[in-house]
Amino acid sequence: MDSVRIREAKEGDCGSILRLIRELAEYEKFSDQVMITEEGPCVVGYGLYYFIYSTWKGRNIYLEDIYVKPEYRGQGIGSKIIKKVAEVALDKGCSQFRLAVLDWNKRAMDLYKALGAQDLTEAEGWHSFCFKGDSMRELAGK
Amino acid sequence: MDSVRIREAKEGDCGSILRLIRELAEYEKFSDQVMITEEGPCVVGYGLYYFIYSTWKGRNIYLEDIYVKPEYRGQGIGSKIIKKVAEVALDKGCSQFRLAVLDWNKRAMDLYKALGAQDLTEAEGWHSFCFKGDSMRELAGK
Repeated sequence: MDSVRIREAKEGDCGSILRLIRELAEYEKFSDQVMITEEGPCVVGYGLYYFIYSTWKGRNIYLEDIYVKPEYRGQGIGSKIIKKVAEVALDKGCSQFRLAVLDWNKRAMDLYKALGAQDLTEAEGWHSFCFKGDSMRELAGK
Repeated sequence: MDSVRIREAKEGDCGSILRLIRELAEYEKFSDQVMITEEGPCVVGYGLYYFIYSTWKGRNIYLEDIYVKPEYRGQGIGSKIIKKVAEVALDKGCSQFRLAVLDWNKRAMDLYKALGAQDLTEAEGWHSFCFKGDSMRELAGK
């Protein structure tokens, strides 16, 4: 798949990326939770990352989402996106690059492990916790 | 424990907070991974948070660390820190407030659940993955 180019997103890509975000939400069974609403022309995949901070290791990268349209899977595009994020992480002085996966998504888990990632939930026992809506408001006394 | 005040950290607290970070690393069995090196006078606990982004829900808060010195536990200080973070989250328009816990830390898990948090690893199957050092460099081809 030499014709697929991995590049930074531009403002004009927003509509296309939104369409992929919707597809990802459907795939992850969270369609009812998408609160954004614009659409546009097509791109075949995306990786959305931001910087996070480890108390004792400093700045790291978190890959919030990675998605490739079903008809473009199995061609190494996901791996290329992940490699690109690893390059950005190194260029920015990060010592880690993190992401989260749903346990039923074996295909993704296998890919990440094959690329050298460690499952921290399995290896160290990390669980993700979340306060949402009402429980957060109650907690804050508001 | 009316004499304990929950407030934003100031620059002068850095040394004290570092000492607590060291204690936390020891508690979490990661002492060998602490790469920072200054010390100072004493504070009894801290919560370290930053903003993260959910693709379909926008800005949220992530509580990277929360720690209370052993001799000050059981007095509700941890809960007060968590409540303060929930207030900040609401003030900043966040819809979620996330954190991660090690599965052997039952005391912390029970506290978060009692305060209304949901265990997303248990409920939805989220696993944390991480590319570190060599595997990240290899991935980036560097």
